[in-house]
Amino acid sequence: MNVKHCLAMENERSSSAGKPIRCKAAICRKPGEPLVIEEITVAPPNPHEVRIRIICTSLCQSDVTLWKLKDFPAIFPRILGHEAIGVVESVGDDVDEVNEGDTVIPVFLPECGECKDCTSKKSNLCSKYPMTISPWTLRYETSRFRDLKGEVIYHSVFVSSFSEYTVVDVNNVVKVDPAIPPNRACLLSCGVSTGVGAAWRTANVEAGSTVVIFGLGTIGLAVAEGARLCGATKIIGVDVNPKKFEVGKKVGITDFVNPKECGSTAVSQVINEMTDGGADYSFECVGSAVSLVQDAYACCRKGCGKTIVLGFHKPESQLSLGLLEMLLSGKTLTGCVFGGLKPKRDVPILLQKYMNKELRLDDFVTHEVKLEDINQAFDLLLEGKSLRCVIWMENDKVTPV
Amino acid sequence: MNVKHCLAMENERSSSAGKPIRCKAAICRKPGEPLVIEEITVAPPNPHEVRIRIICTSLCQSDVTLWKLKDFPAIFPRILGHEAIGVVESVGDDVDEVNEGDTVIPVFLPECGECKDCTSKKSNLCSKYPMTISPWTLRYETSRFRDLKGEVIYHSVFVSSFSEYTVVDVNNVVKVDPAIPPNRACLLSCGVSTGVGAAWRTANVEAGSTVVIFGLGTIGLAVAEGARLCGATKIIGVDVNPKKFEVGKKVGITDFVNPKECGSTAVSQVINEMTDGGADYSFECVGSAVSLVQDAYACCRKGCGKTIVLGFHKPESQLSLGLLEMLLSGKTLTGCVFGGLKPKRDVPILLQKYMNKELRLDDFVTHEVKLEDINQAFDLLLEGKSLRCVIWMENDKVTPV
Ligand SMILES: [Zn+2]
Ligand SMILES: [Zn+2]
Ligand SMILES: [Zn+2]
Ligand SMILES: [Zn+2]
Repeated sequence: MNVKHCLAMENERSSSAGKPIRCKAAICRKPGEPLVIEEITVAPPNPHEVRIRIICTSLCQSDVTLWKLKDFPAIFPRILGHEAIGVVESVGDDVDEVNEGDTVIPVFLPECGECKDCTSKKSNLCSKYPMTISPWTLRYETSRFRDLKGEVIYHSVFVSSFSEYTVVDVNNVVKVDPAIPPNRACLLSCGVSTGVGAAWRTANVEAGSTVVIFGLGTIGLAVAEGARLCGATKIIGVDVNPKKFEVGKKVGITDFVNPKECGSTAVSQVINEMTDGGADYSFECVGSAVSLVQDAYACCRKGCGKTIVLGFHKPESQLSLGLLEMLLSGKTLTGCVFGGLKPKRDVPILLQKYMNKELRLDDFVTHEVKLEDINQAFDLLLEGKSLRCVIWMENDKVTPV
Repeated sequence: MNVKHCLAMENERSSSAGKPIRCKAAICRKPGEPLVIEEITVAPPNPHEVRIRIICTSLCQSDVTLWKLKDFPAIFPRILGHEAIGVVESVGDDVDEVNEGDTVIPVFLPECGECKDCTSKKSNLCSKYPMTISPWTLRYETSRFRDLKGEVIYHSVFVSSFSEYTVVDVNNVVKVDPAIPPNRACLLSCGVSTGVGAAWRTANVEAGSTVVIFGLGTIGLAVAEGARLCGATKIIGVDVNPKKFEVGKKVGITDFVNPKECGSTAVSQVINEMTDGGADYSFECVGSAVSLVQDAYACCRKGCGKTIVLGFHKPESQLSLGLLEMLLSGKTLTGCVFGGLKPKRDVPILLQKYMNKELRLDDFVTHEVKLEDINQAFDLLLEGKSLRCVIWMENDKVTPV
């Protein structure tokens, strides 16, 4: 962005505050159908809310899940998208944390900063404003989006970043250093943070550890990157798609297991042999089958092994766990949201690690498109061809990866 | 023990080394039948073994379980008992760690000190010599006990302390300061260590935490004592027996919940209300029903709560765990053996804490009997009248509590 453009934006910003903004957005009008680029109006922020001009956004697997979903909590028309970075266009009353012009990352996970959990060092689940698959902003049962006919368009997980402008609660906003390239920073808004955080904050992987990761999508690969960052020396990736192994090497995966090539030997047995009795940490990042959690649990080490579930399983999926075996094995089982990260505390730390060239984000961005081509991003993810496809709001920002 | 007696023992010890010893033991000849005091012979220790003159022993719930057990791994005749303290009478070849005259606590959990797990800081499960419900000493498929007819008598969980003399592998022996009163020290051989360790090492309870404990037997009360020692400020005990509440107060329990008095409200809901959203740590110390684990899990706090299973459940008992709920709640579930303690590292620390008047053991000893009255110890435990009954090998050592 050149200085002239910037100043123009400044002027526009001041003049737009308090008024509805007309802009483009990609709307999901029916489940599973291509998004439609339409002009919408974005109302000014309510108290405690922030209106953000999105710079770029990326497509997360959860958006695809919500896009396909026909039953509750499905609701349409809706603006999806929850991995993004932008600039504060204006703030509502009672917003002190950020100002117009601040660069911010919206995060689906609220952090009020005041409740028992937000003030504890351990929990990242705000108990005052619990995370939900909400069709509104955080505090109000209302939408800030309307189409040009005046019909309400719903929000999605408190973010709705597939729009040039969105309105987000201040509890869902992290102020960040504007120096970081936006097409890297946006990744820390959800998927990559979830994986890196799960290794760093939830598992607390120690130097010299052995780690096994089931499923090498973005989250699994981000777990590998987080584990590498924590000093893990053996990082085993498990995936049925051998192509995942190539990109895996770039984020620190040292060994690969393809369950299809294990023959009659159980995957967990193969891993137990590779790790001389089990991995210190096992991560399940698929979510499609309970058996993968069982495998992950079976191949973490007796006496100290931890299994972390990151895969989004169906609400009815139940793991059957032998209690005597659990006691005698001394293993630990846990899950986490957003990798156990507290957004406002931890996202800036991860960004700094990227700027210091410790955390590697570049290889996660496999494609970049402009907003009008957003359906390509869906196709690429559905075909398993992309990790993260960045969607730029301004057409001139699209650069080939 | 006076000095004269001590010197006499010295002479006897030197002369007995390398020879079988004839002494008294309480033998379990048939499941569930009273133990029989008989004269037996105790063979000298094999290489890596230690022959111990038991000073006193105490009765743990697991002994009652093994005493009742009719099917595998039941085996008879057997010498039960695994909480004890004694003095090394003689050592086999290749034993450097302890010498004749050393005061030692035998522990059922082996610690070789050399394997990957014993040398790690985290695991307490030796992978070179795994713990089993063995009828032998640790390294040999043989017994050191025979009755006067020459028939083999089996060992129990590597200890067999219901005998004036026993033979234990050096991996099952912890050298301790002889200054600690033996009828307190023996408690750290199993049950009390398990509870205190679960709060201290496994849960790592932090100052200011809230803790809930299901089941106020010795282990549950020891969890409370461990939690108090770690600085927990709210320690809720859950038990259907209101008498447990009186002794609970002595070990730091601050609040009580009797499930029988909760009416139609679920216990977990009562506790969630008492703790403003859930306890930081919940411990299940009963083992009789899967539902207690579910209750413990339901009342630990979202985002940071840990549930620790200490109850010995039946091998077929399965917990059904909703995977999506586990992920979204961020809760942790774990189990442990011997409270996650490494016997040789941690038992001396706990003993020192007792000597420093930090750890309180006195209230756990509710009864003391002599060996010939050992069946009274079983009756008291079966009737729920005792926590720990200490059984003295020398008749003149029995002092009323
Ligand atoms: Zn909060
Ligand atoms: Zn996401
Ligand atoms: Zn070992
Ligand atoms: Zn025991």
